[in-house]
Amino acid sequence: MYEVELKVEADHDAVRDRLEALGADRLGVVTQEDTYYDAPHRDFAATDEAFRIRRESHGDEAIVELTYKGPKVDAESKTREEIETAVESGSDADAIFRALGFEAAAVVEKDRDRYHLNGYTVTLDSVDGLGEFVEVEIEAEEVDDAREGAKEVMMDLGLDPDEQIRTSYLGLLLGDAEE
Amino acid sequence: MYEVELKVEADHDAVRDRLEALGADRLGVVTQEDTYYDAPHRDFAATDEAFRIRRESHGDEAIVELTYKGPKVDAESKTREEIETAVESGSDADAIFRALGFEAAAVVEKDRDRYHLNGYTVTLDSVDGLGEFVEVEIEAEEVDDAREGAKEVMMDLGLDPDEQIRTSYLGLLLGDAEE
Repeated sequence: MYEVELKVEADHDAVRDRLEALGADRLGVVTQEDTYYDAPHRDFAATDEAFRIRRESHGDEAIVELTYKGPKVDAESKTREEIETAVESGSDADAIFRALGFEAAAVVEKDRDRYHLNGYTVTLDSVDGLGEFVEVEIEAEEVDDAREGAKEVMMDLGLDPDEQIRTSYLGLLLGDAEE
Repeated sequence: MYEVELKVEADHDAVRDRLEALGADRLGVVTQEDTYYDAPHRDFAATDEAFRIRRESHGDEAIVELTYKGPKVDAESKTREEIETAVESGSDADAIFRALGFEAAAVVEKDRDRYHLNGYTVTLDSVDGLGEFVEVEIEAEEVDDAREGAKEVMMDLGLDPDEQIRTSYLGLLLGDAEE
């Protein structure tokens, strides 16, 4: 399975109207605060890896997850190894990694308002310091068909898939050029 | 608060008889499997630190904990900074640290049979590859008084506190000399 994802910068108000008109199911808002770490022994920007603590809250529920993202496994699909486990305490996990020499390099905070539409997940992201974005994504075996479908969803929402941004929010915050 | 701890090597059968005769409360057996990691950027043996994943089971219950132990803060008390948090998956946490360049250096497996006696915790440890040990410990503000009390408990159990071993089980397994 591949995760096919398109992301564009877009004001949310018009997109929300379109989602309602198209009868999309609203899944609710999740708040994510991701702290990305620099390693003491490896340059993650050069190795194309990432290591982070995610604090996610959804109403009264809160979870903390530890995530490692490996480098892209090929040039085309943006597929990465991703290893994740929940931890009880984000502050204790942070203290452990700081003691080991890791340093918090950047924090990405966003509110994610998620909808389901025609089998796709449409996410309205409000990212602190960056602005408003819309992501259309799906898990699929057939990457090409899924990408065409995601482009159609984008157009149904009044968005231009050619304005796709491939850089992560972390990369945008750190000022990385388009990948 | 300090954790005052005395440890000696001792056959358990005679100690169990003494614990029962003295009316100690048995708390039950816990199994611990501790995987200690080498760091890619730091020699923990030289810096007197440790980083491990502990898998602990007690009947049907199982927990996994991530622990960092800092160097001893002074020469006398064996006090260390210890930071710990539970994680959901030991295998995912292990995979994350291996991906970051940490390597499993040693595994310490033991069954711990714990008793309460006169305010002290008496633990009968059966350590794979090392043998049987008895630990007497207490948390206290007054280290000297607590240590004298722990020695008395040792003697009540028919053990000689002068045979105290100060090296950790990890250190003993790795063949470290007495600290």
